[in-house]
Amino acid sequence: MSDETRFAKNLTPPYYAVIFANQLRQDPIGYDETAQRMVELASQQPGYLGAESTRDTTGFGITVSYWQDLEAIKAWKLESEHTLARENGRRLWYQGYELRIAKIEHAYNWRFGESD
Amino acid sequence: MSDETRFAKNLTPPYYAVIFANQLRQDPIGYDETAQRMVELASQQPGYLGAESTRDTTGFGITVSYWQDLEAIKAWKLESEHTLARENGRRLWYQGYELRIAKIEHAYNWRFGESD
Repeated sequence: MSDETRFAKNLTPPYYAVIFANQLRQDPIGYDETAQRMVELASQQPGYLGAESTRDTTGFGITVSYWQDLEAIKAWKLESEHTLARENGRRLWYQGYELRIAKIEHAYNWRFGESD
Repeated sequence: MSDETRFAKNLTPPYYAVIFANQLRQDPIGYDETAQRMVELASQQPGYLGAESTRDTTGFGITVSYWQDLEAIKAWKLESEHTLARENGRRLWYQGYELRIAKIEHAYNWRFGESD
């Protein structure tokens, strides 16, 4: 079913996550295009495992991206187009954000139709 | 400013996170009340540090709750009203979910008006 594509799937701990909670400003011109490009670019990086992302109508969003190791996260941080996008984010689009780097130790999932 | 209240703030690593990505079914009757009650109940548990949560108009949501240690997460899992709510979630409200338990190792934040 279509919603299945929203989950990052079939990942085996341990792996790493970047938890990015953010509040957009009103009318963040150019944000959507850049965000879409960053999704595409991240997915091409070594060690990228997947991501989950959502945002409510007030502009409060959470994106969690998953990575093989800390080195992959660091390399993505240093990627030049991503670095420029982050600068534009602070200058133009975000009201604020919290970014946390975490090691996933355990994971569980459930889909409708499975038993408990 | 009002959006500040959406972030979990002033946490010092290491601490733990429960990353809960979930897809609601259409018209999940009773979900909102139970979700609100679980926010209230979680905030009363020992070791609870805060949470961030958002959901888009398709019903795809991410809630990240933060905890002092794995023991606090385990105790919250076993809390009886929460256990019942999870059972109702699978029976009535969720199409599917992914739940990950992670150790936060590094954290950064930024607010509009700060320098880079």
